[in-house]
Amino acid sequence: MAGAVEIETASPNVISEVEILAVDFDPTAVVAEPLPPVVTAADGGPSESEEEEEGVGKPVKKSREIVLGRNVHTSCLAVTEPEANDEFTGDKDAYMAGVLARYRKTLMERTKHHLGYPYNLDFEYGALAQLQHFSINNLGDPFIESNYGVHSRQFEVGVLDWFARLWEIEKNEYWGYITNCGTEGNLHGILVGREVFPDGILYASRESHYSIFKAARMYRMECVKVDTLVSGEIDCSDFRVKLLANKDKPAIINVNIGTTVKGAVDDLDLVIQTLEESGFSHDRFYIHCDGALFGLMMPFVKRAPKVTFKKPIGSVSVSGHKFVGCPMPCGVQITRMEHINVLSSNVEYLASRDATIMGSRNGHAPIFLWYTLNRKGYKGFQKEVQKCLRNAHYLKDRLRGAGISAMLNELSSTVVFERPRDEEFVRRWQLACEGNIAHVVVMPNVTIEKLDLFLDELVEKRSTWYQEEHDQPPCIAADVGKENCACALHK
Amino acid sequence: MAGAVEIETASPNVISEVEILAVDFDPTAVVAEPLPPVVTAADGGPSESEEEEEGVGKPVKKSREIVLGRNVHTSCLAVTEPEANDEFTGDKDAYMAGVLARYRKTLMERTKHHLGYPYNLDFEYGALAQLQHFSINNLGDPFIESNYGVHSRQFEVGVLDWFARLWEIEKNEYWGYITNCGTEGNLHGILVGREVFPDGILYASRESHYSIFKAARMYRMECVKVDTLVSGEIDCSDFRVKLLANKDKPAIINVNIGTTVKGAVDDLDLVIQTLEESGFSHDRFYIHCDGALFGLMMPFVKRAPKVTFKKPIGSVSVSGHKFVGCPMPCGVQITRMEHINVLSSNVEYLASRDATIMGSRNGHAPIFLWYTLNRKGYKGFQKEVQKCLRNAHYLKDRLRGAGISAMLNELSSTVVFERPRDEEFVRRWQLACEGNIAHVVVMPNVTIEKLDLFLDELVEKRSTWYQEEHDQPPCIAADVGKENCACALHK
Repeated sequence: MAGAVEIETASPNVISEVEILAVDFDPTAVVAEPLPPVVTAADGGPSESEEEEEGVGKPVKKSREIVLGRNVHTSCLAVTEPEANDEFTGDKDAYMAGVLARYRKTLMERTKHHLGYPYNLDFEYGALAQLQHFSINNLGDPFIESNYGVHSRQFEVGVLDWFARLWEIEKNEYWGYITNCGTEGNLHGILVGREVFPDGILYASRESHYSIFKAARMYRMECVKVDTLVSGEIDCSDFRVKLLANKDKPAIINVNIGTTVKGAVDDLDLVIQTLEESGFSHDRFYIHCDGALFGLMMPFVKRAPKVTFKKPIGSVSVSGHKFVGCPMPCGVQITRMEHINVLSSNVEYLASRDATIMGSRNGHAPIFLWYTLNRKGYKGFQKEVQKCLRNAHYLKDRLRGAGISAMLNELSSTVVFERPRDEEFVRRWQLACEGNIAHVVVMPNVTIEKLDLFLDELVEKRSTWYQEEHDQPPCIAADVGKENCACALHK
Repeated sequence: MAGAVEIETASPNVISEVEILAVDFDPTAVVAEPLPPVVTAADGGPSESEEEEEGVGKPVKKSREIVLGRNVHTSCLAVTEPEANDEFTGDKDAYMAGVLARYRKTLMERTKHHLGYPYNLDFEYGALAQLQHFSINNLGDPFIESNYGVHSRQFEVGVLDWFARLWEIEKNEYWGYITNCGTEGNLHGILVGREVFPDGILYASRESHYSIFKAARMYRMECVKVDTLVSGEIDCSDFRVKLLANKDKPAIINVNIGTTVKGAVDDLDLVIQTLEESGFSHDRFYIHCDGALFGLMMPFVKRAPKVTFKKPIGSVSVSGHKFVGCPMPCGVQITRMEHINVLSSNVEYLASRDATIMGSRNGHAPIFLWYTLNRKGYKGFQKEVQKCLRNAHYLKDRLRGAGISAMLNELSSTVVFERPRDEEFVRRWQLACEGNIAHVVVMPNVTIEKLDLFLDELVEKRSTWYQEEHDQPPCIAADVGKENCACALHK
């Protein structure tokens, strides 16, 4: 039956209204050769394809210049067509098992040496492995069931309620959903702000996450960048100047509950005070709090300005794979019901019962979060926050003790320090770097033992980097302040 | 140590530049009571919170009116704080194991009876369970490694290359990434189109996926809806009229490779021809192909208008959890490198080496896709497409044989038919409905046996719904055409 009709029609297939299911249609007639040819350069120039074909089955490592908007095949595990007798020989299965075993080993090694990103790599979800067999999809709104039955809304709503309680908003006054990542939360928060104030100006500090500026561009919003203090916090005196210059338009403000690089927490109370003193009444501004990492740590830190819906804020987002820990990225977005009503009043916008950014949504992520929240609870998180802050102080103190420039913001577990000279060392410890600085984010899986290993290695390597008199570590006073700089001039 | 300092400062915490890490800062000092109180209505009105508290630990099922922008707690598994002695008693673990076991049973039951959504629920990823222990994140660009080492870019690029070959574009001429779902692909494709033509008008047929209209609103683009034929395809004569009325502005067109409801495939060749005949040269239009489901089936169907980058198209997106099958939603987005260069030339837009919509990206999804593509290959998909089309015809023929209105587009496995009167029946089989019509999408996991079970049940139930002379099945000729309608008038 297969391949019964092997001739493709040559002309474009213009189907008129009555031609649907023409009698001569043979559903078993498929194209003769399903295997597309490898596309090669039309101009006959050297094609990268061929180069890469050598790498079939194993990663090809090449060192090339990194340019944005380039498709650089540094590493690729090519998909290969199964052989006709694969099922019989088991060759393919064996090959794939080998690839996966090697990959797993790499992941273990990399997980062990990871310090730079704010991901808690310490989790144990063995009890949930049984759910991997199901295609769990919470498409659309968390509070409105679709007809697709294989979902996890009951877990999702449980998690949302937990966060609503944390940020002090009533169950029937909030709306929210579990996102794919912190960026989606920011995209949603800024969009809600724009829908509430269509001609509003977006204000965000220079050290805000890049997704905020991506949102401004995507949504065609006017965006004003506000200066930061050395700590990385928003500079409210600059904010005031910029607000006063734009008094005629409502303000949409991104407040960082932990900046990406320095872990600086914007002072929410001072931001609100500045708005009020600049003549912005509560019905003329919208505040989105980007709580990526610290949104979940702050409630447990003494003296931290409290993030709560009892203050005039519009939305809060936080990442799920960061402090909580999760195999895949996810996040939580909570906003006020009244704002979602603004969105939903516009039927054309939604064209469905859906006020999320995405359509289909990962139904596994809510179960991972539900599982950890249930096991740890508020008290468990408190303990972990405490441990992280303590270990971060240990790291900072030991760095300074070794004569290395370092800064740690009061409410943060992100230790900023002099960028290691050797890129291999940076890659080994997976440090995030920007200009002359690098950082370590102390997460629950980062132990004193791991920090000691890292510090010993850094101190030893550093003694080989800076042997010569004229070859000294860089001054990073501009990034961390003079008092935190240990360069020749400032130490 | 914990709780050493239990007094919270009363005034907002204004941190000046030099106050970072004030000497009196005690990192172990956390807030005294980490457990936030349950928020209750300030006005003393009946709070939904209390209502819901009854449901702690078990889903609360209530029947309420479904209104968009409402936070309806129909079903919620509340997160509860662990007891101090939980670890000792094991009560919590036992409770959670019970919840999960019941949930798994529900999922199995629902998976068994699912017919309405285009998800292939037939997959076996046991070999990948070992990877659930890792926080795999392909943050940013697939082709530019970040410093975060726990990623799966080598798998992602392998999958992208496979799709590039399918859609006939060279490795060094495309750019793409693995998305979170079909919607993200559409959001990306439309955004690229808008960046290429900032004043372009978006054209999309009325039966396009709602994410297209969501994108238009998000991106503040002018959007023109084009009529459809009864089949669900774009009506190119109406398209022509609307193009001619807007000749002064470039065109950005969404072409449906399978509409959501009727599975209609827009005629790509006719769309291009209409553009050309209306005076739009290739440098004045951008076509995004929304291939959600059929993007992966079409290449294997005879007579289907071919989706290929040899034609003047800008981007193609397809869902990964649909025809391929995957535990969580995902998708593939492929575009031309030259368009990404337009994006990337704008440094402020990106503010990072990143041209994706999201920031952090699920690193597990590429491995699931890689695994299935390797096992099935082009030839395996060909066989499955064949089977789906054959079974879809079987379903349509049996429906018509039983005197039930039904339509099946030639290139599709989506069978549209008269909406069952009973909502419980609709929910049981998880049918997607719109107005008077419902549909079944025949996916690889939908067997003849399952269809027989469904048909027998439908025919039996139907005989009870339409017993009276004056109580007849609805006419759905407006939706499916007279020739497919079996109502009293048209049969």
